[in-house]
Amino acid sequence: MPQDQSMANAFVPGQAILSAGDEALLQRRTDTLGPAYRLFYEEPFHPVRGEGVWLYDEEGTAYLDAYNNVACVGHCHPRVVEAMARQASMLTTHTRYLQNNIVDFAEDFLASFPDPLSHIMFTCTGSEANDLALRIARVKTGGTGVIVTENAYHGVTIALAAMSPSLGAGAPKDENVFTIPAPTGQHGEQEGEIMRANVEKALATMAERGIKPAALYVDTIFSSDGIFSHPKGFLKPAVDAFRAAGGLFVADEVQPGFARTGEEMWGFIRHGVVPDMVSMGKPMGNGYPVAALVVRPDVVAEFGERTRYFNTFGGNTTAIATAQAVWDIIRDEGLLNKTLETGSAFRADLESLAREGDVICDIRGSGLFIGVQIAGDDPRGRTARLVNALKKKRILISASGPGGDVLKIRPPLAFGADALDFFMSGLREAIKDI
Amino acid sequence: MPQDQSMANAFVPGQAILSAGDEALLQRRTDTLGPAYRLFYEEPFHPVRGEGVWLYDEEGTAYLDAYNNVACVGHCHPRVVEAMARQASMLTTHTRYLQNNIVDFAEDFLASFPDPLSHIMFTCTGSEANDLALRIARVKTGGTGVIVTENAYHGVTIALAAMSPSLGAGAPKDENVFTIPAPTGQHGEQEGEIMRANVEKALATMAERGIKPAALYVDTIFSSDGIFSHPKGFLKPAVDAFRAAGGLFVADEVQPGFARTGEEMWGFIRHGVVPDMVSMGKPMGNGYPVAALVVRPDVVAEFGERTRYFNTFGGNTTAIATAQAVWDIIRDEGLLNKTLETGSAFRADLESLAREGDVICDIRGSGLFIGVQIAGDDPRGRTARLVNALKKKRILISASGPGGDVLKIRPPLAFGADALDFFMSGLREAIKDI
Repeated sequence: MPQDQSMANAFVPGQAILSAGDEALLQRRTDTLGPAYRLFYEEPFHPVRGEGVWLYDEEGTAYLDAYNNVACVGHCHPRVVEAMARQASMLTTHTRYLQNNIVDFAEDFLASFPDPLSHIMFTCTGSEANDLALRIARVKTGGTGVIVTENAYHGVTIALAAMSPSLGAGAPKDENVFTIPAPTGQHGEQEGEIMRANVEKALATMAERGIKPAALYVDTIFSSDGIFSHPKGFLKPAVDAFRAAGGLFVADEVQPGFARTGEEMWGFIRHGVVPDMVSMGKPMGNGYPVAALVVRPDVVAEFGERTRYFNTFGGNTTAIATAQAVWDIIRDEGLLNKTLETGSAFRADLESLAREGDVICDIRGSGLFIGVQIAGDDPRGRTARLVNALKKKRILISASGPGGDVLKIRPPLAFGADALDFFMSGLREAIKDI
Repeated sequence: MPQDQSMANAFVPGQAILSAGDEALLQRRTDTLGPAYRLFYEEPFHPVRGEGVWLYDEEGTAYLDAYNNVACVGHCHPRVVEAMARQASMLTTHTRYLQNNIVDFAEDFLASFPDPLSHIMFTCTGSEANDLALRIARVKTGGTGVIVTENAYHGVTIALAAMSPSLGAGAPKDENVFTIPAPTGQHGEQEGEIMRANVEKALATMAERGIKPAALYVDTIFSSDGIFSHPKGFLKPAVDAFRAAGGLFVADEVQPGFARTGEEMWGFIRHGVVPDMVSMGKPMGNGYPVAALVVRPDVVAEFGERTRYFNTFGGNTTAIATAQAVWDIIRDEGLLNKTLETGSAFRADLESLAREGDVICDIRGSGLFIGVQIAGDDPRGRTARLVNALKKKRILISASGPGGDVLKIRPPLAFGADALDFFMSGLREAIKDI
């Protein structure tokens, strides 16, 4: 396991002294899982239990989880576990038989999308959803050209790894993939026009090479590019330009979706655009592998006529029961509003802390997806020290951005005022310690 | 939803009168899931509960499940549900934190593979495992050429749909994919040499086109080609030839794996070959989305050095707890031996039935994966009638093969003597009815 510069907050073997137990476990792990697996942190974290926004290690020490968006309604939420277990003890089967719950869920869930986004296809992972979107886009447009941002991440299949520059040079782009700079957060109301110009430039290069556009993929909060959220609406000119050239817009909501941004259920809504396809995954089953692609009927019509789509586990009865429970909890516990409120308080506290020193130079984000830009001569090193110092304060986050110099704060949505206080006092101390 | 000739046993809308409830559900399903979804049977099946080898419809009518390999230890096996729920109420988290259960499971599970297959990488679906195998093969070999059989199915990602001719013309091959005929079951001890010659011919075409070989993918029981199991060992000459040209052999065990063939835990072992990579999925979690790729360390070494592999849900703590429960049950309930015994009795009964008439002309398979070749002027039509007549007898199977003329019998492994009696008397009657 060599040092992987393309991954922020990666564990580097041999640079820390672990407990004898973890050292032995790590060796067995490398022996069985092989060389492509990575761990987080200077000293890997070894949780054994989770509840709400807390993760506990073997000694019972509690860590505040300010990173894991998958457990969106809180770790081990009893309603989710119960819904999953109840359905699994009744029937787990696939979409080639008729089922009520998949149709009930589809109707309920699709109501959160604007017209004409009225079809949903179920997969197991966000990667499968993004890969399916590209298959559909190729059929619909007859093109193959894809535009993504310079440090984008869209998944791990062959096709997606080639359009996920954040994976580093080991997963090279292919000839159909063109990149544009991510926003910088420095151009205010000009962000939209700058991004449009970048898309038009990429389209021109594509045309020169005889490649027809298929899809523009955007993570609507630019999770791996460093988290860029404002001004709201800046995506629209770029999307309009790409569509004018005949391509389709895929909103990758795997990270920003499911109320994460606090303002809207889906990140694209903040930008005033209606995508051709919307992919989603991570928080959908609170950890159960369920994901989906929402698509305009006219976009998938020819694909559906030419071929079938079957995913053995995708949309199985237990996946659906679990997703329905998560969706119900998001509504019943008012998590969209709570996320907005806690997120606003969170950023206000961070702004206040930023004024106390020269460590933080920018705070971005929406709701409970927050990027904190770290200043200084060696921002990458400082960010890494801060992430690891926070872990010593029992707070879990990670880093983002091509320079690894952005604190990535993305807690379960069940993150309240107490958690925020714990976080801020830990961060204040961690800044002093580094 | 047009008629899809490439899919055997597909429901064709408008050709059957459904109950008012199912008719309404079907309309809502089409409105929400869109045009790419397909159902089985002339009249779709609508199960609401499962237990062991039985599925129950809304009226409580029991159907014998002789098709669903996913629920390998039986529908809703209480030990599986309990293990999943217990872990999900304790902690569901990912592989960037240290975990005991993934390492414990990996060691336990890898013991069923011959040397040097000693690394395992976890995904959520068989598609993800096969797609990852191709990523790794491309890095290891520097080649891109793939050989598959003429009616192969290896998955639904962009890369895999292009190498899954059984999906029909709507999912066209790409220039890196070359096909060879599947075995015919008619050449006895010559099958191996015929297949070797076909691989060598495909390699020659590949070389003419300047394409370097990457991987030969074989479903080791040829599930979608029509189920070809004998003579044992016939795969070896083809694998040897492909390797001699610098390519890697990927055993697709998504269907034949996990004791299915009765003789061995993995289908490739019956053929006396040690693959470079082995993909698996469907039965691994008895319905929970968990899958894996087992790989030789030297094959994945460069890939792991160049890039990282992270799959958000792949190998999460609950996926692993569930897979461990299934693995334990396969051992504790002696399912490998039971599968061998029931499978042998099954084929003996079928042979005896075949002698009574002229409907069945060949019986193939191993353990509880059985292919029954249907004879006559219109074998596809006769097979379809038989599959639907069996459903009226409350027995669920499907059809396979490029001609859709093979009964595909692939029940949960918990299929005992009573189930076999029920199946044989139903089949005997169904043959009379059609």
